[in-house]
Amino acid sequence: MSTENKTARLLSQLEASAGDRVLDLRIENTLLVNVYTGEIYPASIDIYDGVVVGINNPARKAVEIFDANGHYALPGFIDTHVHIETTLLTPEALASVIVPWGSTSLCVDAMEIANVAGIDGLLALIKDADMLSFRLFLEIPSRVPTAPGLETTGGVLGVDEVAELLDLEEAVSLGELDPSKILARRPEYLEKILHALDRGKICNGHAIGLDAIALNIYATAHLSDDHESVHFEELLDRLRVGIVPLIREGSSERNIDELVRGVVKHGLSTHTMMFCTDDKHVNDIVNEGHISYNVQRAIDLGLEPVQAIQMATLNAAKHFRMEHKIGSITPGRYADILLIENLREIRPTFVFKGGRCVAAHGKAVLCPPKSYPEKLFHTVTLPDTFSSVSFAIETKGTAAKCRVISLIQDQIINKEIQAWIPVKDGQLHADPETDILKLAVVERYGKNGRVSTALVKGFKLKCGALASSVSHDHHNIVVVGTNDRDMYEAVRELGRLEGGFAAVKDGSILGSLALPLAGLMSTLPAEEVMDKMNILNEIVREMGCTMNAPFMALSFISLPTVPELGLTDFGLIDVMDHRITNLVLENEG
Amino acid sequence: MSTENKTARLLSQLEASAGDRVLDLRIENTLLVNVYTGEIYPASIDIYDGVVVGINNPARKAVEIFDANGHYALPGFIDTHVHIETTLLTPEALASVIVPWGSTSLCVDAMEIANVAGIDGLLALIKDADMLSFRLFLEIPSRVPTAPGLETTGGVLGVDEVAELLDLEEAVSLGELDPSKILARRPEYLEKILHALDRGKICNGHAIGLDAIALNIYATAHLSDDHESVHFEELLDRLRVGIVPLIREGSSERNIDELVRGVVKHGLSTHTMMFCTDDKHVNDIVNEGHISYNVQRAIDLGLEPVQAIQMATLNAAKHFRMEHKIGSITPGRYADILLIENLREIRPTFVFKGGRCVAAHGKAVLCPPKSYPEKLFHTVTLPDTFSSVSFAIETKGTAAKCRVISLIQDQIINKEIQAWIPVKDGQLHADPETDILKLAVVERYGKNGRVSTALVKGFKLKCGALASSVSHDHHNIVVVGTNDRDMYEAVRELGRLEGGFAAVKDGSILGSLALPLAGLMSTLPAEEVMDKMNILNEIVREMGCTMNAPFMALSFISLPTVPELGLTDFGLIDVMDHRITNLVLENEG
Repeated sequence: MSTENKTARLLSQLEASAGDRVLDLRIENTLLVNVYTGEIYPASIDIYDGVVVGINNPARKAVEIFDANGHYALPGFIDTHVHIETTLLTPEALASVIVPWGSTSLCVDAMEIANVAGIDGLLALIKDADMLSFRLFLEIPSRVPTAPGLETTGGVLGVDEVAELLDLEEAVSLGELDPSKILARRPEYLEKILHALDRGKICNGHAIGLDAIALNIYATAHLSDDHESVHFEELLDRLRVGIVPLIREGSSERNIDELVRGVVKHGLSTHTMMFCTDDKHVNDIVNEGHISYNVQRAIDLGLEPVQAIQMATLNAAKHFRMEHKIGSITPGRYADILLIENLREIRPTFVFKGGRCVAAHGKAVLCPPKSYPEKLFHTVTLPDTFSSVSFAIETKGTAAKCRVISLIQDQIINKEIQAWIPVKDGQLHADPETDILKLAVVERYGKNGRVSTALVKGFKLKCGALASSVSHDHHNIVVVGTNDRDMYEAVRELGRLEGGFAAVKDGSILGSLALPLAGLMSTLPAEEVMDKMNILNEIVREMGCTMNAPFMALSFISLPTVPELGLTDFGLIDVMDHRITNLVLENEG
Repeated sequence: MSTENKTARLLSQLEASAGDRVLDLRIENTLLVNVYTGEIYPASIDIYDGVVVGINNPARKAVEIFDANGHYALPGFIDTHVHIETTLLTPEALASVIVPWGSTSLCVDAMEIANVAGIDGLLALIKDADMLSFRLFLEIPSRVPTAPGLETTGGVLGVDEVAELLDLEEAVSLGELDPSKILARRPEYLEKILHALDRGKICNGHAIGLDAIALNIYATAHLSDDHESVHFEELLDRLRVGIVPLIREGSSERNIDELVRGVVKHGLSTHTMMFCTDDKHVNDIVNEGHISYNVQRAIDLGLEPVQAIQMATLNAAKHFRMEHKIGSITPGRYADILLIENLREIRPTFVFKGGRCVAAHGKAVLCPPKSYPEKLFHTVTLPDTFSSVSFAIETKGTAAKCRVISLIQDQIINKEIQAWIPVKDGQLHADPETDILKLAVVERYGKNGRVSTALVKGFKLKCGALASSVSHDHHNIVVVGTNDRDMYEAVRELGRLEGGFAAVKDGSILGSLALPLAGLMSTLPAEEVMDKMNILNEIVREMGCTMNAPFMALSFISLPTVPELGLTDFGLIDVMDHRITNLVLENEG
């Protein structure tokens, strides 16, 4: 917006505040939760042009008077760190499930779409974001690709690209920077940090598994928060060096109970603490809530409601240097307001974003569909030479001693095991009997057409193949199968769908979920996506796989940064040594 | 500094943190006051390149090991709002009195020098500021001139100039914006606000005397703090609308006792509150302390020491969005550290700025003199036509009913009284018998040569004249006297000195203090300035004036913004009506 327009808008807000313009909305009869003073008191809230322009002003003309009927008025909740693509939904579809729970601002680290489509992907996400029923702020991905030199990605964000993105008004931070980059003192990441600081923006941390010495180094590099604490002692160690906690409660990473118990037990002040979900699946959001669930648990575990609400609102706004925009119900801030009947049951009756009612009684007012650039729907380009032969693993002799990726249930880390595999026709084959399956990654950006192969244990497929174009963080196509032909057909199906999940048996497509937006997200409404996903998971169970979330397991297996083994289009990755390694250790006969 | 240099510096800090470089300093055997967790625990502090690079790391090589001998280690104190020129000292001279008290960062609203010399004045202040023993951050003056159209100033900061200044790395905010500009909805001030917000910087308030409706308007305009609360209820009203308190304890404005008593009594959380001095004279600083005094009183009045220390450190750093630089003793932050023996007696034994000891046992390590542009020493240009005749107040008849500025002891406001004054030789004259003296303002920037005159009651001079080139906020020369000749000589003396204070009797200079830097500041050391000021005040007392601080009274009398009357080079100002008014109401005879 031009300076003139901004000035004119601010001027009109002052006029409305002074009573010289008819208000858009006046919410009367609330019990206002004041996150600055910690008080709760009766209040009316004057709103104009999406902004609060007065609290407890004399009665004034308004286009609409809304009687809150004695409900508590809370600022909208802020999710301080979330990967929106993990939900498989577009922002507008996601809105329908999170907004009824009161999440009105999301700090989104959209590293997935950035890995697929770079700057274009990020810009597409924020384009027309005003139409959403929540506010979308960007944590600018700091590591695209995550493992340069070990994976091919569609997008690359170098120092200049990150600097350019940090200039965006929607950019609130440099996104989570994994400690390996800092401990290895990689100058390009230090430059990204300095670009953020130069622009008055913060740097999000990802301080997983750091000891005291490493934490000192990490804090020296200006990483200012962390969402990876599992134990209270970790949270305390981080806070002591000025790395503040984003207490996470996602689908698999469930940290709030242990952390809040520790905070309560130690009587630690909560005023630097806030909440995030990181990765939370739609089913879980629908069933238990979003940031509202963090607030609810924090209260249940012994924090005062106002304290828990401050963590979900003002504390987060201040950390991200946005307290002039969001995080409180005070003049000058967006009118993002939750009306809640009972402060010990965090379930908003009404949700307002910018003074517009966007959810009532648990039901969202639907967002109009956003449009995305056509090219984001064409991100899967399979290699010209690609065929089922691409999956052949040739070796010598009668048997080969191989590294096998062994999955650990419900975890994203894996173990390397070593096993003797028979060689037939000069090749290694999957053996469903012993649950040794073939795994492959097919480069999907049309950059080099690489196909790499490995062996994996843990899927327990008895037949067929599963493929996914969601495969962290490079998001090439990853496929697991009992035979090369089904693996080929599964990948081909993703080519046809322009990304998604597919299950194939005997050459036939048993089921699929199209994720055509960058190969990561569906454009369907949340409920349809959930239904399709449930059906697909059922099909996979019938193929013999007993996992709760087989496609999620598949999407994480290729990570070149999570121990012990990864698989990218470059080949099998020894994660600890950060290098490509060999599948076959030894041949016999 | 270039990006390359910044990166190289950060890299070397990481190396030092990791133990791969010899530390500059390791402070051992401290009790660290952790303002993030609120804990106090034994700690060693590793310092390299001015920055903390580790807490409680294993013992490592360091150029210097400093044994803190069990002293508490606190972050350096932050003054969140101070007019440095009021002290009459250069920053380097001021350092010698504030740094021993532990003030290591000042957020300086240098509106005085800006009124004299505009951008050049501000840039001169921050040039080579690295050599100072405190950190100098700028609150960019929002109102230069304060009363456009009613006063001539040397510098003018329009919207573009303010925007340019806000881009400075040292700029932390838009400086205090008086409510009249907001309540009158002046677009140029809204533009200045928007420029600050666009740059991720905050806007300081000055929320004096606002009722609830006006506070709503003021907060809507994004003013985010206030240092003018005198009563706790004012503080609470402001905090409720998201305007956080900078609790002030200056020389004349002494607010801390009443405000902290209220905070303690109401159990209000202090985590959004901080401290400032605004205007504190050198004598008072030397005798009782600087921000240390605010901390001391807050503790004495019932806050926990850690809480009071947080207010003076982390809270302020966060508010100004500098918590990555200052406000805590944590890695990555400047090593601004106070060593204090007793947490209930806030008197640092040692003060470190950037890991360099800058004060010990109450004695400062002197800063090297900064150099200032030559033109800042030539800011007094008297009108060509200026003579004692310039002070003639011509009128008709035998007597005239006049407006007289009547001073109120120890306050900057004044009252308008009306009195019949005899007319002799067609002129009004001063009458020391009835304490009606002549007051004049002489434009000193060589812009238009205006001289304006008025009558004033309260100085009680029996003879002679006093002149000052400090006269808020325009800083033209203001002179009070019993006769035109002495007034003329006093002003002439300031012309010779290029600014300062002067006392003249019977055509002779009885005493003076040169303030040649912008006509506002001495370049002498603090003690010399205090001594000279004491001598000068003694001289003025002998001339019959019983005021404690006659030159301060003189410097505030010309303000066109403080009721009821002001005098600028434009003439007598009716402050409430914001217009020029007439001295003579009626003539007789």
